[in-house]
Amino acid sequence: MKRLIASTAAGLLALSLASVVLAASLSPEEQIKTRQAGYAFMGWNMKKIKANLEGDYNPEQVKAAANAIAAIANSGMGALYGPGTDKDIGSVKTRVKPEFFQNMGEVGQIARNFIAKADALAAAAATGDEQGVAGAFAELGEACKACHTKYRAD
Amino acid sequence: MKRLIASTAAGLLALSLASVVLAASLSPEEQIKTRQAGYAFMGWNMKKIKANLEGDYNPEQVKAAANAIAAIANSGMGALYGPGTDKDIGSVKTRVKPEFFQNMGEVGQIARNFIAKADALAAAAATGDEQGVAGAFAELGEACKACHTKYRAD
Repeated sequence: MKRLIASTAAGLLALSLASVVLAASLSPEEQIKTRQAGYAFMGWNMKKIKANLEGDYNPEQVKAAANAIAAIANSGMGALYGPGTDKDIGSVKTRVKPEFFQNMGEVGQIARNFIAKADALAAAAATGDEQGVAGAFAELGEACKACHTKYRAD
Repeated sequence: MKRLIASTAAGLLALSLASVVLAASLSPEEQIKTRQAGYAFMGWNMKKIKANLEGDYNPEQVKAAANAIAAIANSGMGALYGPGTDKDIGSVKTRVKPEFFQNMGEVGQIARNFIAKADALAAAAATGDEQGVAGAFAELGEACKACHTKYRAD
């Protein structure tokens, strides 16, 4: 357990998180639920951008959606992977694989890339250029997938 | 039911939402879960700002948290209150009161005020001024409460 705490703390640092103390104010159950809320909300906004790219393009809607994704990505979600959040807790289920907590160096890299791609999508959306958004959206999708493929159970 | 749809559509317009079509791409269950995800994630970020105001103030963390709240507030959440989302659907529970859908004019006002206060908090956080953040945070709390008190069941 001590090892898990140590490696998680290292991971938190790798994710550039300011305060481990803050994670402690949420129970492990709350941390799991909160990170899932963040991903669910980002997912909805990804869906909206996809619908805009496949149909009528509404620059304001895409900008708002991309801003939401970027702001959530930059909010320090690594703090929601504290000790005890590596497995189901009663009815609170998590799909994170144990390997996630054992490879915090790589997880940190994936997370930083994800944040960079989310920022790039928000920047593209701010210009209103649909082609630029399409490219940045595809790259962000890949960045998401990098973690899902390795560290999320089906 | 037709009346509900009409009043909901009016409410969506009142909330300045771009596209009713997009709401249709999520089932009522998904709409309820997605709006709850948004509120849960905003709640976590409100907690972080509160902890900063009550303890050591970390301007970067407060800025990130305030940005997340503002971006979620501006993402068009009104689209997540479509027809059929006014009551529990099986295991998907909602605390929204039926009155919410019958007072879309007032709900729209509350929503616009909430967005304005979230924007003001993000602006205050960007300056790094703790006193300014404290004031804007309190006002945003009031704006949240305006809806909770009238339109959310305990």
